[in-house]
Amino acid sequence: MQRLEEWAAGDLSGAEEVPAEVRWGAPVARPSKIVCVGLNYRAHAMETGAAIPGEPVLFMKATSAWNGPFDELWLPPGSQKLDWEVELAVVIGKTMRRVPEAEALEHVAGYGVMNDFSERAWQKERGGQWSKGKGGDTFAPFGPWLATPEELPADPGALTLGLSVNGVVQQESTTGDLIFGVAHVLSYISHFMTLLPGDVVSTGTPSGVGAGQVPERYLKVGDVVEATVAGLGTQRQRVVETPVSG
Amino acid sequence: MQRLEEWAAGDLSGAEEVPAEVRWGAPVARPSKIVCVGLNYRAHAMETGAAIPGEPVLFMKATSAWNGPFDELWLPPGSQKLDWEVELAVVIGKTMRRVPEAEALEHVAGYGVMNDFSERAWQKERGGQWSKGKGGDTFAPFGPWLATPEELPADPGALTLGLSVNGVVQQESTTGDLIFGVAHVLSYISHFMTLLPGDVVSTGTPSGVGAGQVPERYLKVGDVVEATVAGLGTQRQRVVETPVSG
Repeated sequence: MQRLEEWAAGDLSGAEEVPAEVRWGAPVARPSKIVCVGLNYRAHAMETGAAIPGEPVLFMKATSAWNGPFDELWLPPGSQKLDWEVELAVVIGKTMRRVPEAEALEHVAGYGVMNDFSERAWQKERGGQWSKGKGGDTFAPFGPWLATPEELPADPGALTLGLSVNGVVQQESTTGDLIFGVAHVLSYISHFMTLLPGDVVSTGTPSGVGAGQVPERYLKVGDVVEATVAGLGTQRQRVVETPVSG
Repeated sequence: MQRLEEWAAGDLSGAEEVPAEVRWGAPVARPSKIVCVGLNYRAHAMETGAAIPGEPVLFMKATSAWNGPFDELWLPPGSQKLDWEVELAVVIGKTMRRVPEAEALEHVAGYGVMNDFSERAWQKERGGQWSKGKGGDTFAPFGPWLATPEELPADPGALTLGLSVNGVVQQESTTGDLIFGVAHVLSYISHFMTLLPGDVVSTGTPSGVGAGQVPERYLKVGDVVEATVAGLGTQRQRVVETPVSG
């Protein structure tokens, strides 16, 4: 945790802690779509047993999963394999249609931390596509900050990121280890679908997810997950049973 | 085409043709998500070479694909395998979270025709998940009508549907051949993600897609696609090159 605290201390806010009496929403409204890149760090692809992809693997995350950075994470009824994925997420600022890689970053409104929470059994053991395991309510907390490109402490390809569960570091890497960098990913997606202002692209997670550990290790009620990207702050969720009303 | 014209004649509008001088938008606004069911007609699963699924296969279609029922269909630059999929689509009226099948239809605002246009090479040959081939601009025309449950001419599980290309029937079936019926699908999805009012669930396509034919047959510029669900009207798209501005 020492490391995560150091990174968090470098965030943009200057705030040392989050006031307990307020709810922090995500710093941008629910997007019209969340496009995620799978298997985009070499060591993560290897820990899942997948081949290193030859081009970006894309999937869509249900936008109903959008959540504030400190909201509770709901363990879905019947879930056995709830897992974490810290990611650098990009918020689109200008419509992107078939934009060349060299111009892609000009279309970015800003950057933030996203956790691409995933129910692994529902993602992988329930019929081929990943949507079922990626779209649960509360599965896409974003924030705490949205940093404009000018505010980033380093190139988007040189940011440290990490995640802890109950204070023990599980993921630790840098976006320099991305197989496909931010500009490439944005340009690539924009050749298949139009990215609209406010849309979110989440760039993939490094190794250290629960599914990659021996034995596999998943989240349970009471666990606290903290995810950080250097300069972008730390988000934190406590795992709770899904409320009856939820 | 005789059959499609008969079905269309039974639609809810009483209108015999669409006025040429107006653009018809989709009868509902762009949804917060489009959840599609794959391989949900037995003969279609067989024509794709896939096994009959043991539970619904779900994927998300980018909402930027949302389009009016008579708008042009844009052939994406570089596309070789643009294909059609007539589907019965459901518009959600009330929030659905883990709703039992017996109560699912109470949450429906209405029904309409959707074409789940698909670029097959991008769907299946570009890295595992289907998102790339499903989310192109103009790939989700909806309408012309939104029929409330009371307006449906028959049970949602007993609707004839079909599709023609240049006047030649390609798909023809009934929702009675759905492997997983409408109520089951809605309930099922609601156990993985929350369906919000206005969200669209597209229930799958019958056999007769271009990818299932021998030889395979795909759309080219100038083709006209007409898709009908009995009682819900006929939508029609002409295939054009993607505009330079698009």
